[in-house]
This record gives sequence, C-alpha cells and structure tokens, in this order.
Amino acid sequence: MNEIEIAGAPMHRLCKKAGADRVSEAAAQELAKVLEEIGTKIAKEAFDYAMYAGRKTIKTKDIEIAIRKVIGK
Amino acid sequence: MNEIEIAGAPMHRLCKKAGADRVSEAAAQELAKVLEEIGTKIAKEAFDYAMYAGRKTIKTKDIEIAIRKVIGK
Repeated sequence: MNEIEIAGAPMHRLCKKAGADRVSEAAAQELAKVLEEIGTKIAKEAFDYAMYAGRKTIKTKDIEIAIRKVIGK
Repeated sequence: MNEIEIAGAPMHRLCKKAGADRVSEAAAQELAKVLEEIGTKIAKEAFDYAMYAGRKTIKTKDIEIAIRKVIGK
C-alpha cells in the first residue's frame, strides 16, 4: 500500500461526533491508517471470494463474508 | 450515528488495489459502513482516554491506546 486512501477530514468528524473539541492532525492520520489497514484486509478477502465465484467484480455478499472472516462479526 | 462520514470513492480504490476490476456501489457502501463503525468505536474510546487525562482534544496517544483496546493489536 503506497498512499493512504482514507482522508483526514472524515476522521476529524468521527472524533468530534464522539465528543472531542479538537483532534490533532497526527491523531486523525493514525485513525485513518488503521481503518485503511482493516479496509485493505477486508477488500483482499472479498476479492478472493469474488474470484472463487468466477467474478472480478466485488459484490456486497463478498464484502459481507469478508467482514465476518476479518472482524469475526 | 446519522450520516456516514467515510466516502464511497476511497472504498472503490481500496478494492481495486486489492485486485478487483469493478466494485458494486452497494459493496463500497457496505465497506464504508463497517469502517465507520470501527472508527466510531475507536474515536469514542480515544475520547474517554483524553477526558481521563483532563483534555477535550484527542491526541495520537489516545488513538493508539484506543486501537489496542478496540482491535486488540
């Protein structure tokens, strides 16, 4: 993974919704980074399932099963 | 949580980096939703730590400990 896809601004908003007055830029980047890592794991798992089903398009059901595998929910 | 903060476009890019040719819009939304849920949990936990330290500003160390608590990493 080269550059981070998830932007900082939504991370600031998530933290403010959680009650924070302010969020340091480094903290927002740290949150974006961990969500990007989890998202990448889920996307890779979802793509494996799509390929297994003979597709190169990821559908909702691929994401759903990948979430269960990666997060166990 | 009312509206979703994490946009669909970065989810499409994550999935394409994972190898997918295409990603359905619903699949991208599903991925955004789960990352938003995890991000919200981490942000709430981070805010609790910040408050405990007498701050209303979330710093990197709050996010770091919150990630360990929420994801166990």
